[in-house]
Amino acid sequence: MSQTSAMHGVLSPVITPFKPDLSPDANRLVAHCKWLLSKNVGLAVFGTNSEANSLSVDEKLMLLDKLVEAGVDPKRMMPGTGCCALSDSVRLTKRAVELGCGGALMLPPFYYKGVSDEGLFRNFAEIIERVGDDRLRVYLYHIPPVSQVPITLGLIDRLLKAYPGIVAGVKDSSGDWNNTKAMLDAFPGFGVFAGQELMLLDNMRHGGVGCISATANVNPGPINELYAKWQTPEADQLQSGISATRKFVQQFPMIPALKQIVAQYSGDHGWARLRPPLVELDAAQATALLDGLAERNFAMPGLPRVQKGAAD
Amino acid sequence: MSQTSAMHGVLSPVITPFKPDLSPDANRLVAHCKWLLSKNVGLAVFGTNSEANSLSVDEKLMLLDKLVEAGVDPKRMMPGTGCCALSDSVRLTKRAVELGCGGALMLPPFYYKGVSDEGLFRNFAEIIERVGDDRLRVYLYHIPPVSQVPITLGLIDRLLKAYPGIVAGVKDSSGDWNNTKAMLDAFPGFGVFAGQELMLLDNMRHGGVGCISATANVNPGPINELYAKWQTPEADQLQSGISATRKFVQQFPMIPALKQIVAQYSGDHGWARLRPPLVELDAAQATALLDGLAERNFAMPGLPRVQKGAAD
Repeated sequence: MSQTSAMHGVLSPVITPFKPDLSPDANRLVAHCKWLLSKNVGLAVFGTNSEANSLSVDEKLMLLDKLVEAGVDPKRMMPGTGCCALSDSVRLTKRAVELGCGGALMLPPFYYKGVSDEGLFRNFAEIIERVGDDRLRVYLYHIPPVSQVPITLGLIDRLLKAYPGIVAGVKDSSGDWNNTKAMLDAFPGFGVFAGQELMLLDNMRHGGVGCISATANVNPGPINELYAKWQTPEADQLQSGISATRKFVQQFPMIPALKQIVAQYSGDHGWARLRPPLVELDAAQATALLDGLAERNFAMPGLPRVQKGAAD
Repeated sequence: MSQTSAMHGVLSPVITPFKPDLSPDANRLVAHCKWLLSKNVGLAVFGTNSEANSLSVDEKLMLLDKLVEAGVDPKRMMPGTGCCALSDSVRLTKRAVELGCGGALMLPPFYYKGVSDEGLFRNFAEIIERVGDDRLRVYLYHIPPVSQVPITLGLIDRLLKAYPGIVAGVKDSSGDWNNTKAMLDAFPGFGVFAGQELMLLDNMRHGGVGCISATANVNPGPINELYAKWQTPEADQLQSGISATRKFVQQFPMIPALKQIVAQYSGDHGWARLRPPLVELDAAQATALLDGLAERNFAMPGLPRVQKGAAD
């Protein structure tokens, strides 16, 4: 195995802002993406924490086009393009490649449970064949606590043999370091991203390429600092710092919490909106979250602030 | 509670045929739907057994339009219209109502797990408000083994109070009679469909309105006969007969098995195709299934047969 991951470093599954009518808000998304890039954090738009599966394919295509039109570098983008329907996955992945996206993060089809590796292999193979473009870089998305459909080592092995160079890596959101380590051991050179920053240093020390983390939406600078300095004597201390922030935030429902934080630190309270079936934090949760962050001297330096009353 | 279900009887989550390029095949679907209607079985197109979540919204809209154009009575149709994305659910439900469909069968958004009843209530409420048509009849789809997101009694209660007349019933595919009975007891007059025919007689005797069953794709006549005669002395014997067939078929992976049966009894072997992530039965499974049915003198009377070599 000698693939080299096309992408590496810290990426954020970018949270998706909604207008009052719950339509996706491209302007707010562009602004947040530009801020993340200014912190050297890449853009895994349309991830789990982006409420991607609460968006239609048309909505995702619109947002992707608007991001590129606004000057966001597609090479720094790894949009989620894996859907339940093969036809949706093909359409979205094709557009991502046409736009020059650095990679595509692919969930398995997640409605049917207990499906075979043969069926999952066919799903990814059909997408790759139908997109039919050598520029495609597929990152498989293993998140069994949510999708309930795992990406096994056997499936990765088959895909790597069938599509070397195209199948470029994996995001392991199992939360199980033994699984991440098994992927690293089995496939040297494969682009293994940890699913959050708690395992970033371990992942780098074992040959991984970075992490894709929800909390990179709000804490991008310090997480990226560890990535930049993982081989220095400070690394363990930097890991402790970002882990402490992560462990505090993840006591709350993650997606509403991230949106509440961005709403608070930008002064743009429309950021707190979610699409059903997700709901915002209740008042007690929001207070506990924001007070806890203030006590920890948490900051989002450089985040554009809106003037009071300027946003909906 | 005094709702009267708009729909009742036996419905089939109609299996979806695919062409060799895996695009959905409207002609084969129309033929199968007409055969089911000739057996007095209604059409829950785009159910779990229809591989509905393996189809894009555009593909579902195309099939729905083609069915109505071909003269299939929309009042006998209860298409599945509940998607992960609110925008998709609204679009599909709106079209179903415009076409005059008798009902819409709605899955909850099924990507996020452990979501609140408040979030699910908002999802269904937004769909109902945005469709904004008094003709809408919502049937909630409770299938925790697959969706992993349950429709609780508390959620039904809230929805019935907020949208009386619009929220018309439920399909209970929990496989748990105690749950079905709890729904029947809690909401007299609510349209409770059993999720398969094993509980059809029990459901009717406790105030239910019928069943929506995968195996009604292949065994519609006998299942409908029990529905027609559930108050007669023959009922228990009829239940035993259809239960025996069901129990035999459900030893095999259900969707591939149903497609294999239709392929065999129609002579149209293209019917056996599935979209990934599902795969066809292997040769040993197919032989065991078809031999077992032959031993049981299973038949699909009136199913149109294609000439050998006529179909792809």
